[in-house]
Amino acid sequence: MIQIKGSMMSVREDAQVLDATIRDGGLVNDFYFEDAFVRALYEMNLAAGVDYMEFGYRADKRQFSVDKFGKWKFSSDEDIRAIVGDNDTDMKISVMADVGRCDYKKDIHKKSESPVDMIRVATYINTMPEAVAMIEDAADKGYETTCNIMAVSKCKESDLTYALEMLAKSPVKAVYVVDSYGALYPIQIRDIVHFYAQGLEGTGKLVGIHAHNNQQCAFANTIEGMSVGASMMDGTVMGMGRGAGNCSLEGLLGFLKNPKYDLPPVLSFIEHYMLKLKEDGVVWGYDIPYLLTGLVDQHPRTAIAAVKAGDTKYLDFYNEIWD
Amino acid sequence: MIQIKGSMMSVREDAQVLDATIRDGGLVNDFYFEDAFVRALYEMNLAAGVDYMEFGYRADKRQFSVDKFGKWKFSSDEDIRAIVGDNDTDMKISVMADVGRCDYKKDIHKKSESPVDMIRVATYINTMPEAVAMIEDAADKGYETTCNIMAVSKCKESDLTYALEMLAKSPVKAVYVVDSYGALYPIQIRDIVHFYAQGLEGTGKLVGIHAHNNQQCAFANTIEGMSVGASMMDGTVMGMGRGAGNCSLEGLLGFLKNPKYDLPPVLSFIEHYMLKLKEDGVVWGYDIPYLLTGLVDQHPRTAIAAVKAGDTKYLDFYNEIWD
Repeated sequence: MIQIKGSMMSVREDAQVLDATIRDGGLVNDFYFEDAFVRALYEMNLAAGVDYMEFGYRADKRQFSVDKFGKWKFSSDEDIRAIVGDNDTDMKISVMADVGRCDYKKDIHKKSESPVDMIRVATYINTMPEAVAMIEDAADKGYETTCNIMAVSKCKESDLTYALEMLAKSPVKAVYVVDSYGALYPIQIRDIVHFYAQGLEGTGKLVGIHAHNNQQCAFANTIEGMSVGASMMDGTVMGMGRGAGNCSLEGLLGFLKNPKYDLPPVLSFIEHYMLKLKEDGVVWGYDIPYLLTGLVDQHPRTAIAAVKAGDTKYLDFYNEIWD
Repeated sequence: MIQIKGSMMSVREDAQVLDATIRDGGLVNDFYFEDAFVRALYEMNLAAGVDYMEFGYRADKRQFSVDKFGKWKFSSDEDIRAIVGDNDTDMKISVMADVGRCDYKKDIHKKSESPVDMIRVATYINTMPEAVAMIEDAADKGYETTCNIMAVSKCKESDLTYALEMLAKSPVKAVYVVDSYGALYPIQIRDIVHFYAQGLEGTGKLVGIHAHNNQQCAFANTIEGMSVGASMMDGTVMGMGRGAGNCSLEGLLGFLKNPKYDLPPVLSFIEHYMLKLKEDGVVWGYDIPYLLTGLVDQHPRTAIAAVKAGDTKYLDFYNEIWD
């Protein structure tokens, strides 16, 4: 049996919350957030006691056109600085760098020249060597780093063991369990977090969790991952994120007992900023097609297309994704 | 540590599913379902392999006007028979009888004269003696019975211990953990199910679970309750139920590994019947006010009123419910 850390009455002092609204939420509006929105979100996160705020991807402009995406697809130091100044606060700033989609040697500058504190390297299990190279590069430049191994529901234990061995020797601060397809249930999340924690035992490295809501388990999986030792948890406001979205930040902060966290700023932000996005037709959140791709452990792209097209022939959809 | 029963690869042969769409869903449309809907739902449940279908409450017509509620508020034997005939199938039929709201001596007839198989007695913890009297009456008349102890998040362990002792001596078949306010998290559900199972140990009585989705834990709580030994699980199609709704039947059947369950009939029913309800303006499902009443462990009535009124002043709402 896996040991439970803490209880409903106690504070897990090691637990830290990362707001990924701009980054995962950006996947549903092509990163077109207005500056006023991003600035208000930054102020909200400060007021709510959030530990890290993520400002999007640092994508390679040779691969992705600046005409087709908002600026948070690229999250330059300059654009972040325009929002946060020198970010002279207790909250840290992160960006995500995808293996194969980030010209990291050129586009990630020295920490001393950047408002960013942490680089989160996102990778599939088969590109771990490049992920480690990116982590080493970022660490050399002075950043905290994480490795976010995507689609963990598809990973073999033997490959994960190897990946964790590589990461144990790297300068990475935390390794994330990423349920990209929203395929996993709490019982599985507990096992995987435990597996990560054992693989990293004695290194001082942390385990993180990033969940998707295809089967309405994003929040439950996040707190269950935490209950067995994960200590970096991703949330997004109203769960804004690709497809069925993520663990909601408001649910997560409401759950956490640490008095440093404060829910009212998030409720106020939802009222004044998030509802407007919904009114403007930005669509995310649980729906039947996402349940079905989650159930069969697939990328949500077919479900996203079905929801966008208003296709409610759920039975046909289910039959097609089994093919 | 609480022992986990089964695994993701195995079938829990003891697990049974109850569809409560008409009963809990009826709370959001005052039980006005068309006969064609109820008949199609019955056929769907048969095709999906569901173990029990619940046909609403058996409310006392002296207390509730037949002019203000659809017939499934009262679920007479005649009305059920008009849908199911003699129900010559493997699926069983249940109705719910609320303590204090059911003239059970008169309105619950002998099993031999009724298409109903099981009477579910719903009670708060402080009316356990009447609940037990109702259970004994129904058992004497030939029915299976359950006791659904509502608002378990508000119950003291000492009172629950006493209630379980009373029920252990009664003819009840199963005792339900009912998270009426959607206040509980998986870690708590596991403890409570374990507490029930220990209290009923050696009696052969089952533990059931009925969850609400205020904090998006209805499905996760249901399968986590099952993982530690609950074997009667309530679901509703699309989670239709009071306020934030329930555990979705489609999520639950998708999760269960027993080949007797079949998801496609549920998907087809959603397409052809449930979407119409939504289009017609019947409202249920997760929303911020439900999160907040769940967080503070309150009845969702204020949240239902806020959602109905389209009130999105979430911060004011949160401040008010703390008062």
